[in-house]
Amino acid sequence: MIEPDIFPIEPWQVREVALDLGLLAQTESVFALSNGHIGLRGNLDEGEPHAIPGTYLAGFHEQRPLPYAEPGYGYPEAGQSVVDVTNGKLIRLLVDDEPLDVRYGDLVRHERLLDLRAGTLSRDLEWVSPAGKRVRVRSTRLVSLTHRALAAIVYEVEAVEGETRVILQSELVANEAQPPPSVDPRIAAALTNPLVAVSQDHQAYGATLLHRTHSSGLLVAAGDDHAYDAPSTVVVEQDTREDWARTSFATTLPAGGRLRVVKYIAYGWSGVRSEPALRDQVSAALTGARVSGWEGLLAAQREFLDDFWQGADVEVDGDPVLQQAVRFGLFHVLQSAARTERRAISSKGLTGPGYDGHAFWDTEGFVLPVLIATYPTAARDALRWRFSILDQARARARTLGLRGAAFPWRTIAGDECSAYWPAGTAAFHVNADIAYAVERYRAATGDVDFDRDVGIDLLVETARLWVSLGHHDRHGVWHIDGVTGPDEYSAIADDNVFTNLMAARNLRAAAKACGRHPHRAKDLGVTDQEEAAWQLAASTVAVPYDEELGVHQQSAGFTRYREWDFERTYKENLYPLFLHAPYVELYRSQVLKQADLVLALHWCGEDFTPEQKARDVDYYEARTIRDSSLSACTQAVMCAEVGHLDLAYDYATEAALIDLRDLHRNSRDGLHMASLAGAWVAFVEGFGGMRESEGRLSFNPALPDGLNRLAFHLRWQGALLHVTVTHELATYTVEGGPIVLYLDGETVEVPDGETVTRPVVRRQPLLPRPSQPPGQAPRRAHRT
Amino acid sequence: MIEPDIFPIEPWQVREVALDLGLLAQTESVFALSNGHIGLRGNLDEGEPHAIPGTYLAGFHEQRPLPYAEPGYGYPEAGQSVVDVTNGKLIRLLVDDEPLDVRYGDLVRHERLLDLRAGTLSRDLEWVSPAGKRVRVRSTRLVSLTHRALAAIVYEVEAVEGETRVILQSELVANEAQPPPSVDPRIAAALTNPLVAVSQDHQAYGATLLHRTHSSGLLVAAGDDHAYDAPSTVVVEQDTREDWARTSFATTLPAGGRLRVVKYIAYGWSGVRSEPALRDQVSAALTGARVSGWEGLLAAQREFLDDFWQGADVEVDGDPVLQQAVRFGLFHVLQSAARTERRAISSKGLTGPGYDGHAFWDTEGFVLPVLIATYPTAARDALRWRFSILDQARARARTLGLRGAAFPWRTIAGDECSAYWPAGTAAFHVNADIAYAVERYRAATGDVDFDRDVGIDLLVETARLWVSLGHHDRHGVWHIDGVTGPDEYSAIADDNVFTNLMAARNLRAAAKACGRHPHRAKDLGVTDQEEAAWQLAASTVAVPYDEELGVHQQSAGFTRYREWDFERTYKENLYPLFLHAPYVELYRSQVLKQADLVLALHWCGEDFTPEQKARDVDYYEARTIRDSSLSACTQAVMCAEVGHLDLAYDYATEAALIDLRDLHRNSRDGLHMASLAGAWVAFVEGFGGMRESEGRLSFNPALPDGLNRLAFHLRWQGALLHVTVTHELATYTVEGGPIVLYLDGETVEVPDGETVTRPVVRRQPLLPRPSQPPGQAPRRAHRT
Repeated sequence: MIEPDIFPIEPWQVREVALDLGLLAQTESVFALSNGHIGLRGNLDEGEPHAIPGTYLAGFHEQRPLPYAEPGYGYPEAGQSVVDVTNGKLIRLLVDDEPLDVRYGDLVRHERLLDLRAGTLSRDLEWVSPAGKRVRVRSTRLVSLTHRALAAIVYEVEAVEGETRVILQSELVANEAQPPPSVDPRIAAALTNPLVAVSQDHQAYGATLLHRTHSSGLLVAAGDDHAYDAPSTVVVEQDTREDWARTSFATTLPAGGRLRVVKYIAYGWSGVRSEPALRDQVSAALTGARVSGWEGLLAAQREFLDDFWQGADVEVDGDPVLQQAVRFGLFHVLQSAARTERRAISSKGLTGPGYDGHAFWDTEGFVLPVLIATYPTAARDALRWRFSILDQARARARTLGLRGAAFPWRTIAGDECSAYWPAGTAAFHVNADIAYAVERYRAATGDVDFDRDVGIDLLVETARLWVSLGHHDRHGVWHIDGVTGPDEYSAIADDNVFTNLMAARNLRAAAKACGRHPHRAKDLGVTDQEEAAWQLAASTVAVPYDEELGVHQQSAGFTRYREWDFERTYKENLYPLFLHAPYVELYRSQVLKQADLVLALHWCGEDFTPEQKARDVDYYEARTIRDSSLSACTQAVMCAEVGHLDLAYDYATEAALIDLRDLHRNSRDGLHMASLAGAWVAFVEGFGGMRESEGRLSFNPALPDGLNRLAFHLRWQGALLHVTVTHELATYTVEGGPIVLYLDGETVEVPDGETVTRPVVRRQPLLPRPSQPPGQAPRRAHRT
Repeated sequence: MIEPDIFPIEPWQVREVALDLGLLAQTESVFALSNGHIGLRGNLDEGEPHAIPGTYLAGFHEQRPLPYAEPGYGYPEAGQSVVDVTNGKLIRLLVDDEPLDVRYGDLVRHERLLDLRAGTLSRDLEWVSPAGKRVRVRSTRLVSLTHRALAAIVYEVEAVEGETRVILQSELVANEAQPPPSVDPRIAAALTNPLVAVSQDHQAYGATLLHRTHSSGLLVAAGDDHAYDAPSTVVVEQDTREDWARTSFATTLPAGGRLRVVKYIAYGWSGVRSEPALRDQVSAALTGARVSGWEGLLAAQREFLDDFWQGADVEVDGDPVLQQAVRFGLFHVLQSAARTERRAISSKGLTGPGYDGHAFWDTEGFVLPVLIATYPTAARDALRWRFSILDQARARARTLGLRGAAFPWRTIAGDECSAYWPAGTAAFHVNADIAYAVERYRAATGDVDFDRDVGIDLLVETARLWVSLGHHDRHGVWHIDGVTGPDEYSAIADDNVFTNLMAARNLRAAAKACGRHPHRAKDLGVTDQEEAAWQLAASTVAVPYDEELGVHQQSAGFTRYREWDFERTYKENLYPLFLHAPYVELYRSQVLKQADLVLALHWCGEDFTPEQKARDVDYYEARTIRDSSLSACTQAVMCAEVGHLDLAYDYATEAALIDLRDLHRNSRDGLHMASLAGAWVAFVEGFGGMRESEGRLSFNPALPDGLNRLAFHLRWQGALLHVTVTHELATYTVEGGPIVLYLDGETVEVPDGETVTRPVVRRQPLLPRPSQPPGQAPRRAHRT
């Protein structure tokens, strides 16, 4: 947990006013910088102390065998793990002859600041060495959102009192020692010395190190270059070895004198290109950096972000805590994806090694909806990554005895890496989630090229999976048996409502795509019979409903299962449950790790009546414990929809604060991108009531009591839409083109530059505020 | 596969008339000798060539970590593997200066003979060395059924032509090299050098080696001693090292002269006792052997077996193939258990390393019913072993959030070793299977001491498991959800009929045991309320039935699952399925690895009407592929009961011939004890129609057309019962006390020495002979 006073509440920044070594692990994640291609954990410049040293490149991974005590057919044989690559952010400082280390001497002042508009992490400290020498150090780092291969640091040391000899050692270090492994399955597998030195090169002010991974055989190049400025002579030395390269700057500063070094860091990696090609790529990036200069990079960074925030910001009036949190979340979601291009966006972005750096359905289900509305090219590229692994997904489907494509449950490079099939392979819904994102992207952008070149293939191949997986019973009802839905405390169940309805959407979307692109459909071998089979399956899909209780069943038979003894679990402090109860107990009980049926209510809302939604929310609220971070945002949206605005507010707060408060106690391993994205979802789709259905954008807003005003900005079909909601009114302003909205049951075309206003009707819930399992109610939202 | 002509059809022996090195692995299993404590694979005396060298001691195992790519709560951390202990059966021969090796020189003749009445394995060979020296070697080995710690070999070499120098090297060898590991999950994990030398000792004609396992810390002592006889001077040498001890006998034989060496081998192991204690134990056993002498051991062996066969033999008139096979099976079942005493009877006995030497529910479900009727003290001891691991089973239940005892799915020493929980932990039925064997043992023996000291504890603790696992729905129906029944191609299912009915039996049996032993019940903390809860659960148990199809559902919803494409599987030769299809596909389909609902029809027959049995057999026959060896016997019994006698005959044949024909192509790793026992079950409970219910022994015999007469002999309440069945008549003869039978609906007390006769009515099936999946029909029975 991170106490509320650690980060002052400020609207556009996250600032740590004093260094807390007990929170070092968490702040390394919170202060991580990334452009989606390069990720730097917020490690201290001098490298130590650290909790988890981390420098990551999207897609760069090592392979390792997956062990099975009892092997089984179709089990993936190799896992993939994100690699802590060559650390380029390391800058050590010697003050006279003592290394700057915050654990020694006297740390007079230490502040770190993540600036959400500048896109930088700054540090400002004053330190007195054990021998009594006082220095002030200021550093600012950025990972460039405009230059994909670049990061940069400006590091300035000032002699506060008296003449001071300083030596600044700027390094590249490969194969950093990692913390020991853990038994918690959410934590990464430990890799020891994953990089093999290939070659080294150096110039006067920098070096380039090339390494290759042992098993996956990927080549990575890391290079640096420096510029410096000081009032007196600076002696520069360069020393390069296989696993490190050091550029040293030695000078003697007069009192008040400053040594300022700008470090440019460039990365490149490939599984295909040659060593010279990579070396040249890094060199070119460094040349570009020198041309831009630090100020140029800084300006470009701000310009990029100004543009982003214009079409992405969420303004929360009345709750500064949430205001900060939601922007923090949006910033990190952008960082996770901006320049990832056709690589996987991992569930932790590039902020930590958690979950081995794998991408899950989180990306399509939670992160992409935000990107589609705020930075659609990143969403497009993420889906193009799925397209790029289609052949692997096809092969996986064959292995599983299925047609079409079976996308991996967890992966970096496209191959299934899930070693526990009941919660991996069986969670086929990832395929429908991809189709869902494809459709959302198309609706929001009208990107016809994507639809024809990428979207239809993804829709058709996932549709094929579903018809081969499901079957019609003797009464013609279409079932999908023995699969796992979103809730990971259930598995191998029949007719999971979420999966069934999402599969049906997937099938219908595929059929429509074929109608839009008949030539491509023909190329893909789609026949009329096949389309008819898709339509038939979709129209006869089973949706288990408990007539007695008047609620939907998460899966067939679920509402007949034994109830969980939440009282005991709470009293004996057994959360998270998966560390205290076996799957065999969880799976047969009515206990939900995360929203499942309720996610169906959100994503497939048109398949349920308002009364069903109210009753279903009520039922599953009492049984959902949110041991997963993929739950609070969905509960926020559906609680808002059925009129529990206050409860929705609590859930929105939980989703938004997950990492700023370390609510799941594992922010150390990286940030929860889906939950951070979920905060946006909670505001925009929860309180804003935004929905997209069949390409129609609708809003049905309502605010909880604690908020005065909510404004959000998003991109739709190339234009900007600004939405402002108060308790009385909602206004919709369009910039850059007309947008057609669906408001209060009617279609409204809002022309460029115009605003329409609609009254907000106070929402009345059908049922009283539901209760949650003891101890598992979301914390009351932060009210000011 | 083993072709039918490999072993001549002889009623009381299995003889291999020529050595087939391609079948060496299988014949090592077929010719294995064991007394249930010591097991010697049928390796050639000279050790090489071999497929799998094997010397096993019941319960003696090594521990190894179980790896998980994705760990989970409650997963067993350590596995147990049977260890190939110090090989004492090794006798090498040098003829002049060339080692006897069947791969070199000229093997003129080679015969091996397993004598089912003598309890010995003999070998008779004539070999001409590469240099042209001709010798005849005769050896006979036994593992004593009367001296638990002893094995013995008599080895005789004769110089056929001319003076021959022979050196016989008799050895003890620890840490023999093992064959490389395989990916097939049924095969053992490889252990390399599992034994650490502790101490050695030797005398003039023998030695003792003590070793300890690395991880499990078990101590094993192996000792040998020798007697010899020759026409000329014999020089004896003894040489002992850490991992081997060699006693050499060198002599020069005249033409026709013979060197005869008797080797006594003794074993002891313990996890508790000291090194001197074990050394002395082995020494004492060797002293005993010398006192008995070879002839004494041989005579005792035959006497033991004469007694056994008197109350165990099954006579099959009309089918000599089956006659041989059923006796072969009974012999091995006896060998697997006779002196196992309070250790686990493993699924392969002590014939090979398959399944890591683990015991499963096979023991209680298939092996113990045979032992209860033929050698009840071994059954008693096997159940006492379960009693001895009750504390481990209680602890396991706690780990799983349950009450009572959760017996391990697979184990050697009592701890759960199953690393795949859906087919391990979730297969809770093992608990009811233990209770079932407890009840059968009590009914057959009337052993009150056992009932009071052991049985009630097992019944009560397993009953407690069920009530904590199951629950009553809102209509009061009692369900057991999310468990795995016998069929391993289904898992994590609700209301598995077999499990539910067996659990109900278990609950009722526990309640009755408490009525018989109220004091013990009180000690166990059983209250009236608890008993009432057992009775209520048992009386309200859910039994899923498909009204439309008129058949029971293996588990809830099963008959609605998709049908398997058996045609394709057959055409593409994809059997066994688990090597060609993922669990996620198998589990959602109507394909059975083995009898499941049909096993419920057998064991819980009184819960079904004859019509239901006929329809259920018909339905499941079409969907059962017998990738498991635990199926044919059950199908035999139920096919016989519903009137498909011809089909039952085929299944009985398959069960009986599983290892003599290597039908599952893995007899190399050890014999299938449950299937061998199942052959007895097929004859006695199938064609003999024997059932035991509430202590009442009944028969309802009927023979298939191919058989003329079936006779079987068994023990009941201390007396012997001889049953003879022809197509017209059944006779029941009692020896040693009255036996109450239930025949044709009435109770008949048959006095000592008397015979009752009943007509046999020709059985008419309700439905036509059912079909099986393509290619999976049992092979037509062998008719003469």
